Amino acid sequence: MMIKLTSRGHGNKEIVERVISSPLKAKKLVEGKRRISVSERVARECINIGYGFFTPLEGFMNKADVEAVCKKMRLTNGVLWSIPIVLDVSSEEIEKEGIEEGEKVLLIYNEQPLALLNIEEIFKYDKMDLARDILGTTDMKHPGVKIYKEMKDTFIGGKITLVNIPIFNPPFNRFWYTPKKIREKFVEKGWRRIVAHQTRNVPHRGHEWLMKAAWFATNGELPVERPQTGILVNCVIGMKKIGDYIDEAIVLCHQQLQDSGYIRSDIHMVSIVLWDMRYAGPREAIFHAILRSNLGCTHHMFGRDHAGVGNYYGPYDAHRIFDEIPENALNIKPVRLLDWWYCPVCDEIGYSGFCGHHEEKQEISGTMIRGVIKNGSDVKSLQKIMRPEVFNKMMECANKYGFGSPFCTEQYLAERQPVFKLQQL
Amino acid sequence: MMIKLTSRGHGNKEIVERVISSPLKAKKLVEGKRRISVSERVARECINIGYGFFTPLEGFMNKADVEAVCKKMRLTNGVLWSIPIVLDVSSEEIEKEGIEEGEKVLLIYNEQPLALLNIEEIFKYDKMDLARDILGTTDMKHPGVKIYKEMKDTFIGGKITLVNIPIFNPPFNRFWYTPKKIREKFVEKGWRRIVAHQTRNVPHRGHEWLMKAAWFATNGELPVERPQTGILVNCVIGMKKIGDYIDEAIVLCHQQLQDSGYIRSDIHMVSIVLWDMRYAGPREAIFHAILRSNLGCTHHMFGRDHAGVGNYYGPYDAHRIFDEIPENALNIKPVRLLDWWYCPVCDEIGYSGFCGHHEEKQEISGTMIRGVIKNGSDVKSLQKIMRPEVFNKMMECANKYGFGSPFCTEQYLAERQPVFKLQQL
Repeated sequence: MMIKLTSRGHGNKEIVERVISSPLKAKKLVEGKRRISVSERVARECINIGYGFFTPLEGFMNKADVEAVCKKMRLTNGVLWSIPIVLDVSSEEIEKEGIEEGEKVLLIYNEQPLALLNIEEIFKYDKMDLARDILGTTDMKHPGVKIYKEMKDTFIGGKITLVNIPIFNPPFNRFWYTPKKIREKFVEKGWRRIVAHQTRNVPHRGHEWLMKAAWFATNGELPVERPQTGILVNCVIGMKKIGDYIDEAIVLCHQQLQDSGYIRSDIHMVSIVLWDMRYAGPREAIFHAILRSNLGCTHHMFGRDHAGVGNYYGPYDAHRIFDEIPENALNIKPVRLLDWWYCPVCDEIGYSGFCGHHEEKQEISGTMIRGVIKNGSDVKSLQKIMRPEVFNKMMECANKYGFGSPFCTEQYLAERQPVFKLQQL
Repeated sequence: MMIKLTSRGHGNKEIVERVISSPLKAKKLVEGKRRISVSERVARECINIGYGFFTPLEGFMNKADVEAVCKKMRLTNGVLWSIPIVLDVSSEEIEKEGIEEGEKVLLIYNEQPLALLNIEEIFKYDKMDLARDILGTTDMKHPGVKIYKEMKDTFIGGKITLVNIPIFNPPFNRFWYTPKKIREKFVEKGWRRIVAHQTRNVPHRGHEWLMKAAWFATNGELPVERPQTGILVNCVIGMKKIGDYIDEAIVLCHQQLQDSGYIRSDIHMVSIVLWDMRYAGPREAIFHAILRSNLGCTHHMFGRDHAGVGNYYGPYDAHRIFDEIPENALNIKPVRLLDWWYCPVCDEIGYSGFCGHHEEKQEISGTMIRGVIKNGSDVKSLQKIMRPEVFNKMMECANKYGFGSPFCTEQYLAERQPVFKLQQL
């Protein structure tokens, strides 16, 4: 199977790039436009649309696309798409500003201009219908349902153009690549196949082996004397819940794995993407595949419980959905892997697919890692499941960015340094 | 890449089976035939031809095929073939018996009838030319050169038919499958892809990971909830050198890995093949691929120094040769992997392709294993590179089959129990 790196993204379309990078030109364009303030989530999605992370989308969806995605997991043009990308606005604001279809308005984030929007359609869509179709539930305990529930009551569809380049703050700046830029990096590295690793975690040794196994699966029968297959760790940066790992620890600890030699630098690269997890299980898996195919990845690894939450999805629902879509619907292949655990008999990370010691297995538990952090105890047994350099980097991040904790606290959520900023035009 | 298990073997030909399994019928057929006694090596190759391990070959090669294999790595019919399969006889014997082309003779092994041979051609071929073309050297220190050197001076080409079923002695009997039988096993197991592991070793943890990595590479994007990819450990049983592992330890220790749960029984199977290693490096790698494609394997793993000896070949010559042959010349894909070592930083088996601790690496050395056996020392550090159950099984085999040693001694070579026997017809 020869896979070529192309400039084409999802739906076999050229990577979208709708960005005005000259501030002067942008300033002129935005003059006199009526303004709509958008949420963090919408701001992140504007950036994604502008840089082509959501290729072939050029803007927020109109009603027909939202409906097609909900009911058929397709755009109206037939391209596979699993999660609606919508701009929600309150009807009061629309009325107050007198905003109408056909108009060009300016989207404002954090009081700075972000993007121009050509309003094609202003429409209503039942938010609980969205939740039901995309998440399979309307249970408010599901964090994705909460996202839909909290959306404003009206949607605006239309193409957008980014007019302000987001500036990423350290430590995120070195991990930020647009789809076009990251594809150039892949060419530089000489990678012919790239397998994406979706993460919101500080990596333990199970994650490490998930990546290594996926690397073998992706490399397949390619010769390996000169590495031609890379792992793209793509950290999802977006809405956080209390108890999640802090973003800074996630990106820097993945980088630490490379810096400490656990994964060679010529087959491994850490990057970020702005996205608010919907925890949509199988539909989110498809979405992640689309996202990473736009980054130029040829493969995407999916472990157990991918993008799920609670017990809303079976542990391998996100595997099975790939059997249900036509082969050519995606430019990226799923690499599906099972459970990893610490096996005391093998005295190494075991894979449920080949380790026969199912009765002796020890789940690699976040609880255990949390215990060590809390009590400082049992660091030695932790070494079996987390690299000491990763643990140390995590604690360094806790102090530097996390107000003492590597996990999101209310203080972190309220006071953390923003991931990116927009400058005044 | 969808790979189908078919009844077709190498060269896209139906698996050859030229075996008279009725002793009565065989007895009749062999009556009155002139007899030629053959060496162990030729006997093993008769069995291979008869059961289709060497499909599409139906007999020993005529001169034109030998020459085509030497010069172009092809049979005269264009099918890829890398090592001549020849029946060597002394000119004295041919003269004494008055054997002629066109005649049907009986091949005798260990004083029992083995196969009928339709003599097509009696010819000479320079044995050192064979060595030079196949092995790239005529240096007598190369054990393959020794095989050619010791061949008798005349070759006989012609189709053979097995007239006597070899009976395998324990512990080999449970690991003996003909190509047709092993393909039935694969279907029973529901395997859609099978990756072959060539071995003449008691497995250490590096071999274990070689197999596991190759399993991932072979499985690729196949779903894994129900295992559809298997590992076929195919132990080469043939001519031994002093210091080699004894055959009994090789097969039983590989089985022990499964029995002790280090590799699940539903993805792993141990088997044997009769073959005298030529240590031909790249040409032998091609040959191993052909052999395992006839067993129904879809993939074949190749590590460092595959089938090489001394410094006659570069460590990855056996990888590179696969880039030089046309894609459709083989029904089996090479899975090429680099070095495995024990990494004290990772505290696990490291793979040179992703472990960055090249300076700290510890080669997994046979010397170390030999040291433990000799002195009984350092068993604990040995556990990092060899499973205790495997070590114990190896020592059990040493006592039961090896006259106290797991390695071939002169006594073992002289007095060992034969791998198979032929019954009186």
